[in-house]
Amino acid sequence: MLTLYHYVPVANGGKVLMALHEKGIAFDSRWIDLHTFQQHSPEYLAVNPEGQVPALMHDGVIITHTSVINEYLEDAFPDTPPLRPEEPLVAARMRQWNKYIDDYVMQAVSIHGWQNGAGKIARGYSDEAFEALMARIPLKQQQVKWRTARAGFPQEKLDECSQTIAEAVAKVEAQLAESGGPWLLGEMFTLADINFYAYCGGALATMFPRIGNRETCPLLLDWAARIEKRPGCARALATKAPA
Amino acid sequence: MLTLYHYVPVANGGKVLMALHEKGIAFDSRWIDLHTFQQHSPEYLAVNPEGQVPALMHDGVIITHTSVINEYLEDAFPDTPPLRPEEPLVAARMRQWNKYIDDYVMQAVSIHGWQNGAGKIARGYSDEAFEALMARIPLKQQQVKWRTARAGFPQEKLDECSQTIAEAVAKVEAQLAESGGPWLLGEMFTLADINFYAYCGGALATMFPRIGNRETCPLLLDWAARIEKRPGCARALATKAPA
Repeated sequence: MLTLYHYVPVANGGKVLMALHEKGIAFDSRWIDLHTFQQHSPEYLAVNPEGQVPALMHDGVIITHTSVINEYLEDAFPDTPPLRPEEPLVAARMRQWNKYIDDYVMQAVSIHGWQNGAGKIARGYSDEAFEALMARIPLKQQQVKWRTARAGFPQEKLDECSQTIAEAVAKVEAQLAESGGPWLLGEMFTLADINFYAYCGGALATMFPRIGNRETCPLLLDWAARIEKRPGCARALATKAPA
Repeated sequence: MLTLYHYVPVANGGKVLMALHEKGIAFDSRWIDLHTFQQHSPEYLAVNPEGQVPALMHDGVIITHTSVINEYLEDAFPDTPPLRPEEPLVAARMRQWNKYIDDYVMQAVSIHGWQNGAGKIARGYSDEAFEALMARIPLKQQQVKWRTARAGFPQEKLDECSQTIAEAVAKVEAQLAESGGPWLLGEMFTLADINFYAYCGGALATMFPRIGNRETCPLLLDWAARIEKRPGCARALATKAPA
């Protein structure tokens, strides 16, 4: 019995939803609304004491952190379509990409996301209501992030993140040229494709049109369109809040 | 044919050296002296364009980043003693620990290390010689780290890192109590033990005696002593610079 606690099918949530649907693994979907801070509710903290989504519950045991969850799905469901290469060297390349994406790209996109998304949410609360919400957040660094987003990140930090994103886009464009496509590592669609799409590639042209456009990264945009046509990914990306 | 480019057997270097010796995998050791900035020499940049150690060369192909290298050793040498649990859920727990150690603990210890180690090295060079060395560093964030270390990190940052280390020590102590030992995940010695020992557990009592002592973490100190008695780890930790 598998339950995924998640929010919208982009970034962290998209990453695990795409893997689950690509592998055709059945699961219960539990929507955790970040707009109303459900991730810090006592009910959800009983599921994941760190108060973060997504989290996967498998037979009553909780697994957290998207790259860990996605490798777990590979290990625990060996009879489903693989998203991790069998060949050790190609698996290592996939993990190098995942580390780069998790450590640099995700952070950089996330700060723009926090500035525009979480910042707006946070400014919608009075000082008192906001502080009450902060008091429920178990991870101190998450409190710092919410406070910074509410105040607004310095322009210098936002510029530095845009620069990181531009470098990542150039790197992926070069990799697609080198691998010959259709996917980052060549013939096989892997967790690295899912990872870059979820954090950056999918929203690139709308979130950062000056960085990601047909002049700067035609191969990347074609790659993103191919991902959206995959039945598993399309199903994941169509995930909606319960009515 | 396996070659490891590395420096002293602590932190990043220790992490891969311990895995190789524990698994009994034969390899050529190439010492890269960070004190004389050999990692940014043209010869080494031809091996690893990012100018970082350790790096593993296997049959002419380079693999970088310690957690990626150590998972690669598990995949590529399946007939050697395993350091990654077979059971998917235990492997996931190991990767959660590795992510926590790589993302938080390593960074926190590293900043104290940069302050005391790299800072001293950097201040040993004239401004002009230092700038010439900086110009050879391929990763911009590494240049920033060297410059900051030379100037000295702010006390507030150092205190924040000490706090992260104290939290990690408490977390590991609790985990050893919960698992019942002898290792982090119980009966099996894994990459998570190696990871925490290399970045924090091994040097804890000497680097941070107020955080790590017999009052605060007796189980952790016994665990570290057990690691040092393992023949593979002992061989790794005895690695010395060539005469």
